[in-house]
Amino acid sequence: MSLLVIGSLALDTIETPFGKAERTLGGSATFIATSASYFTDQVRLVGIVGYDFPKEEIEFLKSKKIDLSGLEISSTKKTFHWHGKYNFDLNTRESLVTELNAFETFDPVISEKFRDSEYVCLGNLHPLLQKKVIDQITNPKLIMCDTMNFWIEGAYDDLLNILKVVNLLVINDSEARELSKEFNLVTAAKKIMSMGPDIVIIKKGEHGALLFVKDMIFSAPAFPLEQVFDPTGAGDTFAGGMMGWLAKTNDLSDKNLKLSVIYGSAMASLAVEKFSLDGIRDLSQENIMKRFNEFKKLTHFDEMSL
Amino acid sequence: MSLLVIGSLALDTIETPFGKAERTLGGSATFIATSASYFTDQVRLVGIVGYDFPKEEIEFLKSKKIDLSGLEISSTKKTFHWHGKYNFDLNTRESLVTELNAFETFDPVISEKFRDSEYVCLGNLHPLLQKKVIDQITNPKLIMCDTMNFWIEGAYDDLLNILKVVNLLVINDSEARELSKEFNLVTAAKKIMSMGPDIVIIKKGEHGALLFVKDMIFSAPAFPLEQVFDPTGAGDTFAGGMMGWLAKTNDLSDKNLKLSVIYGSAMASLAVEKFSLDGIRDLSQENIMKRFNEFKKLTHFDEMSL
Repeated sequence: MSLLVIGSLALDTIETPFGKAERTLGGSATFIATSASYFTDQVRLVGIVGYDFPKEEIEFLKSKKIDLSGLEISSTKKTFHWHGKYNFDLNTRESLVTELNAFETFDPVISEKFRDSEYVCLGNLHPLLQKKVIDQITNPKLIMCDTMNFWIEGAYDDLLNILKVVNLLVINDSEARELSKEFNLVTAAKKIMSMGPDIVIIKKGEHGALLFVKDMIFSAPAFPLEQVFDPTGAGDTFAGGMMGWLAKTNDLSDKNLKLSVIYGSAMASLAVEKFSLDGIRDLSQENIMKRFNEFKKLTHFDEMSL
Repeated sequence: MSLLVIGSLALDTIETPFGKAERTLGGSATFIATSASYFTDQVRLVGIVGYDFPKEEIEFLKSKKIDLSGLEISSTKKTFHWHGKYNFDLNTRESLVTELNAFETFDPVISEKFRDSEYVCLGNLHPLLQKKVIDQITNPKLIMCDTMNFWIEGAYDDLLNILKVVNLLVINDSEARELSKEFNLVTAAKKIMSMGPDIVIIKKGEHGALLFVKDMIFSAPAFPLEQVFDPTGAGDTFAGGMMGWLAKTNDLSDKNLKLSVIYGSAMASLAVEKFSLDGIRDLSQENIMKRFNEFKKLTHFDEMSL
């Protein structure tokens, strides 16, 4: 199945306690599309970059068989630039610079060719832009959407509107609490499901992710890494792996949704082991299956009755 | 196998956002022994209570087939009393009253009859008292010990000494970080293992627990409950279920250690659903196996390759 990915493409400068990377490839769409490309060669990207976007990064995305016909290159503006600095524990970060540049006027027009996309992955954008994308898709099977505290606080009604039409919301724990006004995550997920989405995934960073579908809850740990190098893009890499798996298998059973969360978690754990996108630039099927199997060892136990 | 349990017995007054319980049964040994009693009828308790300790609670512990011949009843002092108040999120609490009473001079003398105990569960006590217990056991198969930030800060050298002779340390995440001076929990666990214990379990509260054994890591989630009523004793209930399972099965393989963590987690999840000890006062084998099976559904996924 085809997978449409909409979101930002950026050049990030990232500082962590372990080093600094200057103007390295970033943005939600970049991480989502790259991660998904390991699962399907039907990834379609819609986004905008500036005239300064490196040609070799275009070639890199092409090498992943990502369809870039929906990528606009501005001839007058620079690429979205974010400069962030992570604190010692890597759980909190400070935004030092945010220059939207070309991304400021991003207006996602979906080409005729892309409108039949079955799976749709809406990276973190203003809910009105997300809505605009949805309105252009003719016959979607699954629409996933990400959001952030910024929109919960600044565009609450627009967000509620879009929740009515998306099937799957991926959100982190503090955002889930803020959106639902519930502290308990199970209650929060139920409340969010009552707002629209049939499937809610709550990301808990170093504590993994919870998948909620009707009466089913599934818990996936984060992979216990001794060294997390750079958490930038981990959530988008998770979403890309998950949606890539779903688009590949075209199966929305509880059983397969669980698998999608594990594949997403495996991809995210590989991403944070290196700076920026480097952890998922050049993976083999073996790399991914090795991590998948490690997740199995990490979580599975035998049956033995009391 | 026999399981020796040493720790406090208390009468707690507990306030949570959901209510208040006055002078209800508490203490580490109480929770550990009660939880373990569902797995083995060889639980031996060593502790002290005051003259005010309710006779019906003695009868309750006896009804669980816990051997109380090591329980001292002071005729001059009252029972250890703790009064705590939980904050809205149940993750933090305030100690309003701590009256050690009879527990202040607790001197754990192990009777001849108890010295051959194979499994030993040292509840949170001064490391010197824990050491004194260990010195009296003739041929232990597994010694588990709990501790807390108070001893890490106030009796660090004594704690290091005891770590050299215990096999299993159960500790929460912030204590693991404090003890090891490492932020990353994998690194922290490795460092703690280098201090002595072959097995380290890091409890992460609502995020579950991590089991570390040599090259094996196992991750157990906390059960996603919509309503946590009272987290008092959850960690001790976990330890009791885990050690009860190990004493019952007498198998320290990686495979069985994983199972012990799941049984401990199942017991802890049942405990927090009600006030104080009420959640585990009267369980059936069916109650426990139902929760065990829910843990399986919550964590297991099929195999399906990329």
